[in-house]
Amino acid sequence: MRITKNEIKLVRSLSQKKNRQAEQKFVLEGWRALKEVLNSSSKVDIVGVLSRYLDDPDYQGILSQLEERGAAIRELGEKELDSLADTVHAQGVIAVVQQKSNSLAPELLKKASVIVVADSVSDPGNLGSIIRSSDWFNVDALLLGKGCVDLYNDKVIRSTVGSIFHLPIIECVELPSALLMLKDLGFSVIALSGDGKQSYDEKPMSGKLAIILGSEAHGVAGEIRALADEVVRIPKYGKAESLNVGVACGIVLSRIRSLQEKKKGA
Amino acid sequence: MRITKNEIKLVRSLSQKKNRQAEQKFVLEGWRALKEVLNSSSKVDIVGVLSRYLDDPDYQGILSQLEERGAAIRELGEKELDSLADTVHAQGVIAVVQQKSNSLAPELLKKASVIVVADSVSDPGNLGSIIRSSDWFNVDALLLGKGCVDLYNDKVIRSTVGSIFHLPIIECVELPSALLMLKDLGFSVIALSGDGKQSYDEKPMSGKLAIILGSEAHGVAGEIRALADEVVRIPKYGKAESLNVGVACGIVLSRIRSLQEKKKGA
Repeated sequence: MRITKNEIKLVRSLSQKKNRQAEQKFVLEGWRALKEVLNSSSKVDIVGVLSRYLDDPDYQGILSQLEERGAAIRELGEKELDSLADTVHAQGVIAVVQQKSNSLAPELLKKASVIVVADSVSDPGNLGSIIRSSDWFNVDALLLGKGCVDLYNDKVIRSTVGSIFHLPIIECVELPSALLMLKDLGFSVIALSGDGKQSYDEKPMSGKLAIILGSEAHGVAGEIRALADEVVRIPKYGKAESLNVGVACGIVLSRIRSLQEKKKGA
Repeated sequence: MRITKNEIKLVRSLSQKKNRQAEQKFVLEGWRALKEVLNSSSKVDIVGVLSRYLDDPDYQGILSQLEERGAAIRELGEKELDSLADTVHAQGVIAVVQQKSNSLAPELLKKASVIVVADSVSDPGNLGSIIRSSDWFNVDALLLGKGCVDLYNDKVIRSTVGSIFHLPIIECVELPSALLMLKDLGFSVIALSGDGKQSYDEKPMSGKLAIILGSEAHGVAGEIRALADEVVRIPKYGKAESLNVGVACGIVLSRIRSLQEKKKGA
């Protein structure tokens, strides 16, 4: 069936945060990301696809799986797709997916050993890269403070390359109370900052850890920083003013996993 | 003096790669980046600035230093600036800067101990983040293969946050011959890839090192990989398909510096 005017209207409306929040839906682009949805419990409402893929046996498998799970498969023209998505990234397919609201359940935190906390990360590419690294290094949960960019922003979704479906991400978290809860549960709360006293590679980084990342422009907010057990830095050797927050996140997570492996091996 | 029509035309033309290459110039935005130019040997031709900054003592120092170094200071209206630059990032000032062509001089390589080599990194934000991390960890030179995004692309410049002025970056490098040259000079050439045999944190990472980063979509090209002494991976613990190339670069550079510090301390 061809995509309807109302469906096109819906997809278009989801480029705005207020509509995404009202509908509790977002737009996903590309086959790679769609395959990842199938490995998750997320619900897909509509899949819009160029006709040439409908007849392609390589793609029929994914499409019939999506249909079985309740998605409406719709045919799209090139021009329609162009008007709805970034064509390079969409690769001939877009989908409307239901947001999965994760709440800050104490059970989730109790089972966790490494948690990443983002305080006011405003760049979509940076949040996407934090999600991807958190997935790669198997972080148990990602908490996003209220100042973070919307998780379902198209650029965030694009840059996570499907990782958004792989770990619990909790949005709009009241960080001060969440950090107190984590401390009660035995987590060491560590804030990352260029002016931290101790270097990240001098810290033992063991036990239950919550790593706080700050905003690109202002770092970790004072009231959040005050709740940290320690403020740790990645030492600078050159002249750059700062490290990208997504890169800093990856460096610290890689170090945590590397130390754990060495402990296991020892 | 007010900015002239021809100057506006020049700035506008520099949004295109072919014009940047013909003029050997590029556009820089924001005060922070302009301060970094003053710490470098790069030449600034024109500075376009909103009138309110011209009379602000906080900015007069930078402007007069730029003028002393030969820059023409021009007054701009809000609308003119809007039409020329991303206003959020420009913060009231843009400049036309001369490209500094760095050639692959053997003297540069002989003095170097850590070199980053980017093979076909196509995303501007990723190249920017690689430049920033290379600066932070004090890499001696960055070599860009022919498949990389243009170094003077506005998004690259923006995401380097001034680091482009801090280290030698050589563009359009014929990578196979450059890698052979590095090997002759005693460098260990290490390619980063998800399917590398050895984990980066099991490698000693000492001596002279050249680290090769691959393209976002296809990794390190076969002919380049064949020239590497070793292919090294960052182990995966979760389900992400890959790590962001800028993050991977930061992780490996942080490890190299961390090991060197420990050696010094021992």
